[in-house]
Amino acid sequence: MGEFADSMSVIERGVEEILTDESLQKKLEENRPLRIKAGFDPTAPDLHLGHTVLINKLRQFQELGHEVQFLIGDFTAMIGDPTGKSVTRPPLTRDDVLENAKTYEHQVFKILLPEKTTVLFNSSWMGAMSAADMVQLAAKHTVARMLERDDFSKRYRNGLSISIHEFLYPLVQGYDSVAMKSDIEIGGTDQKFNLLVGRQLQENYGQTPQVAITMPILEGLDGVQKMSKSLNNYIGITDAPDDMFGKLMSISDDLMWRYFELLSLRPMAEIEAFREQARAGENPRDIKFLLGEELVGRFHGEEEGQKVRKRFIQRFQKGSLPDDMPEKTVQIPAQGIAIGHLLKELGMVSGTSEAFRLIKQSAVRINSERISDRALVINAPAELVVQVGKRKFVRANLVL
Amino acid sequence: MGEFADSMSVIERGVEEILTDESLQKKLEENRPLRIKAGFDPTAPDLHLGHTVLINKLRQFQELGHEVQFLIGDFTAMIGDPTGKSVTRPPLTRDDVLENAKTYEHQVFKILLPEKTTVLFNSSWMGAMSAADMVQLAAKHTVARMLERDDFSKRYRNGLSISIHEFLYPLVQGYDSVAMKSDIEIGGTDQKFNLLVGRQLQENYGQTPQVAITMPILEGLDGVQKMSKSLNNYIGITDAPDDMFGKLMSISDDLMWRYFELLSLRPMAEIEAFREQARAGENPRDIKFLLGEELVGRFHGEEEGQKVRKRFIQRFQKGSLPDDMPEKTVQIPAQGIAIGHLLKELGMVSGTSEAFRLIKQSAVRINSERISDRALVINAPAELVVQVGKRKFVRANLVL
Repeated sequence: MGEFADSMSVIERGVEEILTDESLQKKLEENRPLRIKAGFDPTAPDLHLGHTVLINKLRQFQELGHEVQFLIGDFTAMIGDPTGKSVTRPPLTRDDVLENAKTYEHQVFKILLPEKTTVLFNSSWMGAMSAADMVQLAAKHTVARMLERDDFSKRYRNGLSISIHEFLYPLVQGYDSVAMKSDIEIGGTDQKFNLLVGRQLQENYGQTPQVAITMPILEGLDGVQKMSKSLNNYIGITDAPDDMFGKLMSISDDLMWRYFELLSLRPMAEIEAFREQARAGENPRDIKFLLGEELVGRFHGEEEGQKVRKRFIQRFQKGSLPDDMPEKTVQIPAQGIAIGHLLKELGMVSGTSEAFRLIKQSAVRINSERISDRALVINAPAELVVQVGKRKFVRANLVL
Repeated sequence: MGEFADSMSVIERGVEEILTDESLQKKLEENRPLRIKAGFDPTAPDLHLGHTVLINKLRQFQELGHEVQFLIGDFTAMIGDPTGKSVTRPPLTRDDVLENAKTYEHQVFKILLPEKTTVLFNSSWMGAMSAADMVQLAAKHTVARMLERDDFSKRYRNGLSISIHEFLYPLVQGYDSVAMKSDIEIGGTDQKFNLLVGRQLQENYGQTPQVAITMPILEGLDGVQKMSKSLNNYIGITDAPDDMFGKLMSISDDLMWRYFELLSLRPMAEIEAFREQARAGENPRDIKFLLGEELVGRFHGEEEGQKVRKRFIQRFQKGSLPDDMPEKTVQIPAQGIAIGHLLKELGMVSGTSEAFRLIKQSAVRINSERISDRALVINAPAELVVQVGKRKFVRANLVL
């Protein structure tokens, strides 16, 4: 019973809706590995963090002992846009599909456990389906119910065209659950209607209907709009480590907690402890570092997660330079200028002995890098930010 | 040009609508045998005269040199009612279809010229169609346009359920025209929408759109409701000659002219001449005889057409018995009663010699049958209508 409650708290983390709690409970009580379905569009295999909300949930199910059915919906993608309206979306070939599938696997296995994941293609069963079977399938649903779907009802009311094949796609998606005998299907909130079609069709075909679990749509970096490439408020999971980390550091503190819940694989208890620390006065930036480290670590390796933080801190320090530093031009002799003399020339120390003392105290930085060598000689022209202690800055323009 | 005008007047006879006149004209100007499509439901191969309105039009096209594509829509019939709501309409097997097709052929070749008729089954192409092809086909039409169809729009407005597969059937029917490269499709007025879908799909598939010709729905014997089995106001084309003739004789004079136009294969000029005769005072019943003879002749052979008329006239005479005949009961002796005595007992003659004279003049009938044997003896109990001359009738109840 305690174990069951634990499972439930993991499953419920971050979800939008579970349809229904009762059927979920029954499935869990069967005490067997459940088949957890999630469908992916093979035309767009470049994932961003928004997509991983769903994939993380799949991973959580895997850690509870269940098996993921990673479904690539290639049947419809291989049809393309049959209205012929879109020239930018030609049908995918079998080869395209397989290549995109590889890209997907490469990306999602950074989160999913391969030994608990089966990759499926719905063309396997839909490709063999006849027109007569399709008619039979279409008979399982009514026009009125289909027009209840949010986007369809809006388009119909506004006189925007809906092609009849668009009514067939939710049925295909629902039939996938029948073919896969799925126990649970997870999708975004925008997929709720389709997940319910799956439930209904499984019942029509004599199966126990799947549990439909919807996950919220992740907000993008702005914290308002949904994360999407077209809004350019996204973090791609193939983004370079520094970009990924930097973007994560730019989000608001509120959004950080949202991302922790939906993107981190840390237990909620740990995240609650972080919240506590923040309330007790810890700098939220330092907690955000942990999120950045974890996510960069996941997609680029743990070591890189550590390094990226250091690099960011360097840039962050540089980034926190005062806006109105005094600027000075210093002529350097042919043999170069020693660090002690430079500090004196810039008027930052009274003499070289004070300079040496400060270097010894680690209080001198050039371009944010701490100087430890009092014998350092600079013999090339350069623009340098020279810092002494916490507050003295000079932008030095060294010329020959 | 004169020939073209002749064709047009034959084609236009009795039609409800031609869509469009221009495309019909273009097709005719190609001066080649056109492919004339008509679709039939293989679940109900028992035709009544209402169905033959369409078949007559096909025959007229054949006489103009064109070829009939007699399409049996077995694809959908072999699916049955996929909603599972109707238990009375199970899917047809291949054998059912072939048997029904034979019945059809047997019936329609009483009107159509076999050498200019090709019988086709849409399962030939639809059976080979994949679900993916069906999706492609469904993409060619919009939900909004489908909901414009009269019956769909009514059902949708009234909250009556429309299954999605019902949207696929008009597309299948339309696609048949593509597969058959039909030049012209003929259907009832209730088929107008579907015929237009065929036009549109042919255009989508790069063909010259077919001409859609609708025929009116024939009124039943009551002259008001459409002819249908369920209303029992129909004449089946396998009805026995006497039934068929009798039913035709029962229609109103107005309806007779309608039936002449839609059911007779006589040229309209001849029918106009009949109208002229009727206006000039000829008994319309005699003109109706010609219609009855033609139709019975078509479905039961010319000779039978002649005979049935004679039999009807006999029964018609019988049928014109006065309503208020005097009734008499006559006790017959053990050895029976001779016809002369009977007439005297009934008070219809003054004596047996008058009786014998009238029998000799063929003026005596029993149950409408002329009596020629003056020695006739009746020795069993019976109810008889006895007639002497044109006006004397008695209903005689003979008891032992």
